[in-house]
Amino acid sequence: MRLSRYLLPTLKETPAEAQIVSHRLMLRAGMIRQEAAGIYAWLPLGLQVLRKIERIVREEMQRAGALELLMPTLQLADLWRESGRYDAYGPEMLRIRDRNERELLYGPTNEEMVTEIFRANVRSYRDLPMNLYHVQWKFRDEQRPRFGVLRGREFLMKDAYSFDLDEAAARRSYQRMFVAYLRMFSRMGLTAIPMRAETGPIGGDLSHEFIVLADTGESDVYCDRQLLELPVPDDQVDYEGDLAALIAPWTQPYAATEDVHDAERFEREVAAERRLHTRGIEVGQIFYFGTKYAEPMKALITGPDGVERPIHGGSYGVGVSRLVGAIIEACHDERGIVWPDAVAPFQVGLINLQQGNLDTDAACETLYARLTQAGIEVLYDDTGARAGGKFATMDLIGLPWQLAVGPRELKHGQVELKRRATDERSVLTLDDAMAALLDARPRRD
Amino acid sequence: MRLSRYLLPTLKETPAEAQIVSHRLMLRAGMIRQEAAGIYAWLPLGLQVLRKIERIVREEMQRAGALELLMPTLQLADLWRESGRYDAYGPEMLRIRDRNERELLYGPTNEEMVTEIFRANVRSYRDLPMNLYHVQWKFRDEQRPRFGVLRGREFLMKDAYSFDLDEAAARRSYQRMFVAYLRMFSRMGLTAIPMRAETGPIGGDLSHEFIVLADTGESDVYCDRQLLELPVPDDQVDYEGDLAALIAPWTQPYAATEDVHDAERFEREVAAERRLHTRGIEVGQIFYFGTKYAEPMKALITGPDGVERPIHGGSYGVGVSRLVGAIIEACHDERGIVWPDAVAPFQVGLINLQQGNLDTDAACETLYARLTQAGIEVLYDDTGARAGGKFATMDLIGLPWQLAVGPRELKHGQVELKRRATDERSVLTLDDAMAALLDARPRRD
Repeated sequence: MRLSRYLLPTLKETPAEAQIVSHRLMLRAGMIRQEAAGIYAWLPLGLQVLRKIERIVREEMQRAGALELLMPTLQLADLWRESGRYDAYGPEMLRIRDRNERELLYGPTNEEMVTEIFRANVRSYRDLPMNLYHVQWKFRDEQRPRFGVLRGREFLMKDAYSFDLDEAAARRSYQRMFVAYLRMFSRMGLTAIPMRAETGPIGGDLSHEFIVLADTGESDVYCDRQLLELPVPDDQVDYEGDLAALIAPWTQPYAATEDVHDAERFEREVAAERRLHTRGIEVGQIFYFGTKYAEPMKALITGPDGVERPIHGGSYGVGVSRLVGAIIEACHDERGIVWPDAVAPFQVGLINLQQGNLDTDAACETLYARLTQAGIEVLYDDTGARAGGKFATMDLIGLPWQLAVGPRELKHGQVELKRRATDERSVLTLDDAMAALLDARPRRD
Repeated sequence: MRLSRYLLPTLKETPAEAQIVSHRLMLRAGMIRQEAAGIYAWLPLGLQVLRKIERIVREEMQRAGALELLMPTLQLADLWRESGRYDAYGPEMLRIRDRNERELLYGPTNEEMVTEIFRANVRSYRDLPMNLYHVQWKFRDEQRPRFGVLRGREFLMKDAYSFDLDEAAARRSYQRMFVAYLRMFSRMGLTAIPMRAETGPIGGDLSHEFIVLADTGESDVYCDRQLLELPVPDDQVDYEGDLAALIAPWTQPYAATEDVHDAERFEREVAAERRLHTRGIEVGQIFYFGTKYAEPMKALITGPDGVERPIHGGSYGVGVSRLVGAIIEACHDERGIVWPDAVAPFQVGLINLQQGNLDTDAACETLYARLTQAGIEVLYDDTGARAGGKFATMDLIGLPWQLAVGPRELKHGQVELKRRATDERSVLTLDDAMAALLDARPRRD
């Protein structure tokens, strides 16, 4: 993409309304624009990151055997009356009347609707286990939307729902999602720690939050440092097999958010030098809630014994738009964003240090064509801005690699390649720079 | 995908509520489920088609130089007061109040919001032409939602918006979209005829509807048969060049929907044997509306002369979810859907005629693995259903190819390959069947 044909409205000033770093950087990098309190438009750069995250989420859901469908944003209030949640849900639910005075709502979550879809279409235990997921916009009418996309009102979420014949099978479905979550966050370049959590309005008796550690996080978290070093299951994980042994090292060490923190147990179980008290951002939560929805909504399945029984369910959320902010909270420095390779909007920022110079123009065109041809996403700054401004913009938007083409190095057939994360620079021939970038292409896990 | 692990709730009976064939077939093929009047959930098979259509739309928009962003579903009422459309828009606009009594609406279209984004971020003629598009869910509160996804209330739409310094440049932007539309519908396997149209609530003085011809269409259309034979611009089209000559053959012959039909002109201009009177379904509409939004909303650009002036705009819609229904209206027979290759949810339906037979099971597993490995999307019917039922299901869901593996042919090392569209069958060795399917892979244009 040529910057001259792109829409990248970066800001030099820090927007006054933004209280946290990810919100400030998303506004400064021209990723989003607020359209109403807690409601954002995603400008091209922001959308590209959102799509990368979505793709990783989908790939890991599919790998774990989940099926994608797509439920609408609006739902009938009557559906929520079946589960009893219509009245229980507070003012965060956006309630709507259509032209015929029919009561609708903008879905904040989809347990009811997916249970309705399941009960209408699945009858036999032979179809189980089943896990249905979608990636859709949701709405929660927060009293005080803030922190940009970290606590917006309209937000993009992946939510999955598992259906099983009994509790033992449902726990295996839960474990599959547990492993899929470890993998997806790790692929995004995040250290996300699963922590025992309260179940809140979703209900049930088993839940984990996945928390990204970041100094600027929203809540205090306490955990055993050994969790930071645990290897994440690789792409050969057998989701049909027994995952208990893979999960045990993640669930045994102490890890808790402030809501459920037990200081006494923390000190008893974790040696002083391994105690970590920091802050974190929740990026996903998984629940096993048994028959909470199946019973009132009569989602029944006939087992091998011919007896009908309510299915055992779980639900599994990932805040897709929230992750964009969470990744920035975890990956930035004083100059701007430092995208992990897998979610970067472009891999390479190609900087023409003297636009209009025949040599640098020609070298840039060659590099742009060769990189694009090789399937590497490049943002080519072909504008007339000054070199200092171009470097500052690239640092701000945080592409993993910067390739700078200036007349001085080019006399010797060389360009400068910089790794954004480490500031490491090397002066290389065009061919060597190409080879280095080809080599660094993010592996598709 | 193994059918035993898929969610494909096909129906034998024709649902009573569905009045038109695409609605009936989408319900019978388990593609959608109605969640409220005019509001549908997309089950896995339907979603796969929707995604294929989306991808073609995106590819052609990018090819034509448009930039993707994503605007939210909800908008502030105040934004629509700026253009004067808030009060002008009728009861089809879904109006909402949030918990703080702020007036919102579920966007039926996005001229106001994109104009707001443009005016906040673009100042100079050097950034033009610019075309911003998104693919997002929209809502129109139809009084009588019907015909399934052809006239739903919550629907997926691609809408693009062009910004130019003057009318001449804006007309070139319009032409780029005109060509992109010809290409995208053609790639979906559709014959879509551009027809001069009224501009309605979007406004402006130039508009074309793109109409798919189908006997079961919603409106009468009249056109010159030569339009059916015109070649569509290929993928080498130069969007930077002058497109007028490419477009002229499409705009000169007579073509009109009933709203603007002029019977006298039709008879005068079109020889009797070339007069076509049939029915059609609108799948896209493009508008040039000049400064209609830019003036009241003060979207101004400084030209090369230093003078600020309101930009000239156009908007360009494609009914993405509507297209799923429109394609079925155009592509079906008495047994079910007949998907064009490019939008088929899977390319091949692999039918094990005797599940449990060691030979057919083994041959199917081999074929399934080889096809999948080759990047061909296969739905493998590995269920215990009877052969007749399996063939009927495959005919109903309309995959382009059926590959049937039965014990009788398999004794001679053979399988039966059927083309759904023509009913042509051949008995081939496994290797020859593989080769035929590899050969038939849809070209990515």
